[in-house]
Amino acid sequence: MPIYTCTTAESTLDAATKAALAAEITRIHSDINHVPSTYVNVVFNEVAADNIYTDAVPARPLLITGWVRDGHPEAETTRLAMEVAEAATQITGIGKERVLVVFESSPAHYAVEGGRVLPAPGEEAAWLAAATE
Amino acid sequence: MPIYTCTTAESTLDAATKAALAAEITRIHSDINHVPSTYVNVVFNEVAADNIYTDAVPARPLLITGWVRDGHPEAETTRLAMEVAEAATQITGIGKERVLVVFESSPAHYAVEGGRVLPAPGEEAAWLAAATE
Amino acid sequence: MPIYTCTTAESTLDAATKAALAAEITRIHSDINHVPSTYVNVVFNEVAADNIYTDAVPARPLLITGWVRDGHPEAETTRLAMEVAEAATQITGIGKERVLVVFESSPAHYAVEGGRVLPAPGEEAAWLAAATE
Repeated sequence: MPIYTCTTAESTLDAATKAALAAEITRIHSDINHVPSTYVNVVFNEVAADNIYTDAVPARPLLITGWVRDGHPEAETTRLAMEVAEAATQITGIGKERVLVVFESSPAHYAVEGGRVLPAPGEEAAWLAAATE
Repeated sequence: MPIYTCTTAESTLDAATKAALAAEITRIHSDINHVPSTYVNVVFNEVAADNIYTDAVPARPLLITGWVRDGHPEAETTRLAMEVAEAATQITGIGKERVLVVFESSPAHYAVEGGRVLPAPGEEAAWLAAATE
Repeated sequence: MPIYTCTTAESTLDAATKAALAAEITRIHSDINHVPSTYVNVVFNEVAADNIYTDAVPARPLLITGWVRDGHPEAETTRLAMEVAEAATQITGIGKERVLVVFESSPAHYAVEGGRVLPAPGEEAAWLAAATE
């Protein structure tokens, strides 16, 4: 259901670090948003060093954007952002001042997976049960 | 007006498949959202095989995100997501369980094209007429 | 706080043009949205020439998407889109009919930077002051 995109300059993160960050984002998301880990997608978007700017100069931030379904308690989305940001700093060693985590959301019925419209938050159990029938 | 981004691991889709998927997304969008096909953008974002994870392991999903203007009937956006997902599976051969389509939206007046603020849904005709004056 | 992503076919923009566009987006954003330039991120996402379509054929648009916090006056976001689009055409020489600027937004408390939840628009001063304590 969710999609996380981690954008960095190329060579910022090695393969093991990317795998570890993907695993921890998946664990945190599954725990807080009650989604099986099998539905959590994490993409690393690595751009050339001169293709990423902060304050108008080439820079090396870690920009993490996530999409979630509308309807989760807002405080939970804040907690998700905090935990993902903390994990990102711990795993990558990138200082927290260079880590930005942003969530966007839209209605579950604006999304389709497995050929079916996604369930609203709280309705995952019936949706998941139907997936295995 | 709309932007579709199709994210995959590199080498998942060949050139002909990408062209065919772009064409079908364009056709579906133009039909359902009443936008001339000349305004439909489709981008393929291909990342290294170890840069895309599902369930914390490298995976090969097809993640399609689209942006639309607020104000379309919600049921139409659901239909758009369903038809795009079905077309993606038919054209690419990727199983529907690995295809995720997500729409996000924001107000038309948060967007500019051709130097002019985009029209709200339903007001396209006057906007398009002015473009050709 | 904000993230701008400029998507083009590769070789559309040279290094100097990208740097100039990043600088101007940063200046405009900082001015209109009252955010220090040190918090403005601009990413260039360059894809292969056959990975970007308009009207179902390979094309060379300049697609700029930006994320902002909810709560800015809507007219200011429209002005931001207009000024960014105008700057993009002036700096890159790409005709305005091929430049699309889209903003999406979500609550400030859906985002974390420097280990802290972002401030709502209007509350930046206290947040920034706390960052330097």
